[in-house]
Amino acid sequence: MEAVVSLAKRRGFVFQSSEIYGGLNGFFDYGPLGVELKKNIRDCWWNDMVRRREDVVGLESSIIMHPKVWEASGHVAGFSDPLVDCKVSKQRYRADQLFFAAVVVDGKTIGYVSALESEKTVEDLQAAAEALKRKKAVQGALAPVAAKDMTEAQPDEIALIPSPATGEPGSLTPPRAFNMMFETYVGPMRDSSAVAYLRPETAQGMFVDFKNVVDTGRVKLPFGIAQIGKSFRNEITPRNFIFRSREFEQMEMEYFIHEDADWAKCHQEWIEWCRQWLITVGLPESHLSLYAHPKEKLAFYSKGTVDIMFKYPFGVQELWGIAARGNYDLNQHAQASGKPQELFDEATKKKFVPHVIEPAVGVDRIFLAILCAGYAEEDVTDEKGNTEKRTVLRLSPRVAPVKVAVLPLIKNKEQLVGRARELYAKLKRRYAVFYDDSGNIGKRYRRQDEIGTPWCVTIDFDTIEKPGDTFTLRERDSMAQRRITEAELFALLEEQVY
Amino acid sequence: MEAVVSLAKRRGFVFQSSEIYGGLNGFFDYGPLGVELKKNIRDCWWNDMVRRREDVVGLESSIIMHPKVWEASGHVAGFSDPLVDCKVSKQRYRADQLFFAAVVVDGKTIGYVSALESEKTVEDLQAAAEALKRKKAVQGALAPVAAKDMTEAQPDEIALIPSPATGEPGSLTPPRAFNMMFETYVGPMRDSSAVAYLRPETAQGMFVDFKNVVDTGRVKLPFGIAQIGKSFRNEITPRNFIFRSREFEQMEMEYFIHEDADWAKCHQEWIEWCRQWLITVGLPESHLSLYAHPKEKLAFYSKGTVDIMFKYPFGVQELWGIAARGNYDLNQHAQASGKPQELFDEATKKKFVPHVIEPAVGVDRIFLAILCAGYAEEDVTDEKGNTEKRTVLRLSPRVAPVKVAVLPLIKNKEQLVGRARELYAKLKRRYAVFYDDSGNIGKRYRRQDEIGTPWCVTIDFDTIEKPGDTFTLRERDSMAQRRITEAELFALLEEQVY
Repeated sequence: MEAVVSLAKRRGFVFQSSEIYGGLNGFFDYGPLGVELKKNIRDCWWNDMVRRREDVVGLESSIIMHPKVWEASGHVAGFSDPLVDCKVSKQRYRADQLFFAAVVVDGKTIGYVSALESEKTVEDLQAAAEALKRKKAVQGALAPVAAKDMTEAQPDEIALIPSPATGEPGSLTPPRAFNMMFETYVGPMRDSSAVAYLRPETAQGMFVDFKNVVDTGRVKLPFGIAQIGKSFRNEITPRNFIFRSREFEQMEMEYFIHEDADWAKCHQEWIEWCRQWLITVGLPESHLSLYAHPKEKLAFYSKGTVDIMFKYPFGVQELWGIAARGNYDLNQHAQASGKPQELFDEATKKKFVPHVIEPAVGVDRIFLAILCAGYAEEDVTDEKGNTEKRTVLRLSPRVAPVKVAVLPLIKNKEQLVGRARELYAKLKRRYAVFYDDSGNIGKRYRRQDEIGTPWCVTIDFDTIEKPGDTFTLRERDSMAQRRITEAELFALLEEQVY
Repeated sequence: MEAVVSLAKRRGFVFQSSEIYGGLNGFFDYGPLGVELKKNIRDCWWNDMVRRREDVVGLESSIIMHPKVWEASGHVAGFSDPLVDCKVSKQRYRADQLFFAAVVVDGKTIGYVSALESEKTVEDLQAAAEALKRKKAVQGALAPVAAKDMTEAQPDEIALIPSPATGEPGSLTPPRAFNMMFETYVGPMRDSSAVAYLRPETAQGMFVDFKNVVDTGRVKLPFGIAQIGKSFRNEITPRNFIFRSREFEQMEMEYFIHEDADWAKCHQEWIEWCRQWLITVGLPESHLSLYAHPKEKLAFYSKGTVDIMFKYPFGVQELWGIAARGNYDLNQHAQASGKPQELFDEATKKKFVPHVIEPAVGVDRIFLAILCAGYAEEDVTDEKGNTEKRTVLRLSPRVAPVKVAVLPLIKNKEQLVGRARELYAKLKRRYAVFYDDSGNIGKRYRRQDEIGTPWCVTIDFDTIEKPGDTFTLRERDSMAQRRITEAELFALLEEQVY
């Protein structure tokens, strides 16, 4: 993971936001290569999800919407994390990340210890328990600690649990709900009537505009509305680089189906569509798995949620959630707005509210998965038999920031440079390409390897001296070289970059 | 203008945000066709500005940045509109949109009148002056009113000017500055240390990340950093549809040059580049003009600003501003962060802070300009000699939401449909295309005319019965028809859609 973060910074994929001012926790900027990779992820999704399908249309709703949207959706009341305050230090903790344990010696509780969630929470608690036993000079057998988080604390335990900031009990508050939506005021007044929120998800835009799309587009059930855009969540503890940040980008789609349609089949089809799509942008199938949320943890209206999980260096984590949400959202908005959100069934002559399947994924999470899966360090042997290390990003040609690097073998030979420039000009009309004439050719290949460029094309003496006008095509992964004509190069790109 | 707004709503280009909840003033959603047009504008700009140039790289900085960014840039202190309150009605007005005049009869001021800015502000004031003269039963000659706005009011006049809400003087406050940045809080605390702003422009991201780009990319002066993204301004009076809204999308580029470079020449080149670019996405040259900001109105650090103006139905308005900002921004951030923002000049062996040329344009303003310029209603005569009205959107193929409509002449002839489906599948791998088999062919053409589709391809009996496998190509603007092969169609698209 450190290697990936370091490459991301070194080669201009991702910067910390406002770095010259010490950074802003949970916010990131995408540099010259990062913005290309990100745009390619978005464009691949948009092309496959919207433009190449006849049953999905696009939408871009505003980030700031009417506050009633978030009342109806349940976000104002329920979109919160439980927080615990330390009244002495003024520190705040997410209750589910603050762990504690009773210290039990010979079956008797002699006090409590606490620790913040980490890879060794239990060890920390055990060590703290031993320290407490020594401090209190209690004799006897210390039981292994049973770690719980603060959401599991009994009311009478809270006053006994030490604050991680002070080490002393008595200052922690019971957990209370903290809403994760960013709030602001629209217009010149600053009162409750002017409160608005930055959207915590793009999905509600599709529900609120459902009737507009039905009335103006030529859509027929089943059909989807897709959106790509920024969302904001005021996370208490952003972490794992760009995996959980406060400002992020989502790609969501609401697929509306008849109330009597076979939702389970449709749900399965979308799970498989999403899984296959991830493979087309270069994620190895072996890193993907499915996780079905247990029935008892689902919201009351939910028919089922399956997450596509990805094996990140920091663990197997949710990448893409595919939820069967029934018709809860449309019903909520119908009720709150007084505007029916129904369609008319020509067959039964009855009105009904469509159900929905929702695949929701974060661009930044795919970005990180692609970097992690693609990163490799290899020992390679050069022509002289020397072994060196090469860093390579095995990115799919669909998403690689640069598709082809055009390299004249040497830069002071006019004919080579002229032919290289001509090819470069032709290529860049359609593709993101890079022209590089500085340094020896091996070094130039390495630079492209490191940023994931699938192909290098070298314009060499065979190009200008031998018949056929061919170039050396060098493949990133195999490092194999072969000769290729311009027409063959364009055919290769047409097939691989789409 | 009404016709354009009506088409935009009717065909799903633009919706009011949160419409089912009564809308949210100054916020808009882009529907299925609008999102395609908007994406095409962005993609054309990105391809031309970043991918096809060797001297410009991309960036995506976060919308929420460190608050010190906006202190250094001057936005916290100075990014404000003057507001006037009515203490009785609690209404607020932008001071430069609230007009007043002294009512002068026979050279003597008998009172004041006020009116909100409109197309007939002066007439309104004159009528109010006459009413006041009658009400006060003053005899004599009423002088023509001299309208001023509230920013021009003398301190002793303010108490005499009637509030537009109550009609009575005495309740208006002097104008005071209202900051237009949306404010929010990052993290669980709500105190001054947690205040953050939604960016009012994307430009500061390029300045703050300047060193990161220099250190990680392989850029050499002169070079640019470009960004597309949302910005937010809490406008008191959003207006003219999507022209001035509170949430909008910018395309900005900072072009860094040597401190000794010929900035005026560079400025001119960018003005011309931008003007030409607008023409490539379909804006008529005749609607474009230049406006150079007068020297005395420039900020002290500014070397000059020229706006490319567009003739909208509601007047000639700023579309694209090209500013020569010196090195003000980099200096401000160097000072505020304590981190030098310098480059090293190999020739003179001295460090210097680069200067910058900034072309800044709004996606939504281009979108509106394209719709306004493209919209036409025409009388056309059909084969039977009947005259009918056609609505047509003359959009450039570069930005049209649908490039080609594929139309089988009739839908119950398997051979026609099969060939049409085959063509459609091939086209949609690369282009946004639309398949339509319902209604007579003339009606289908009209539907495409209205959404700006440049070409319709009809698969007809000649296609399947005559040699050559040709289709009818029907052009939107001329309505001319000719036969075309699949290869010719792809060549046409390759040339026109880029």
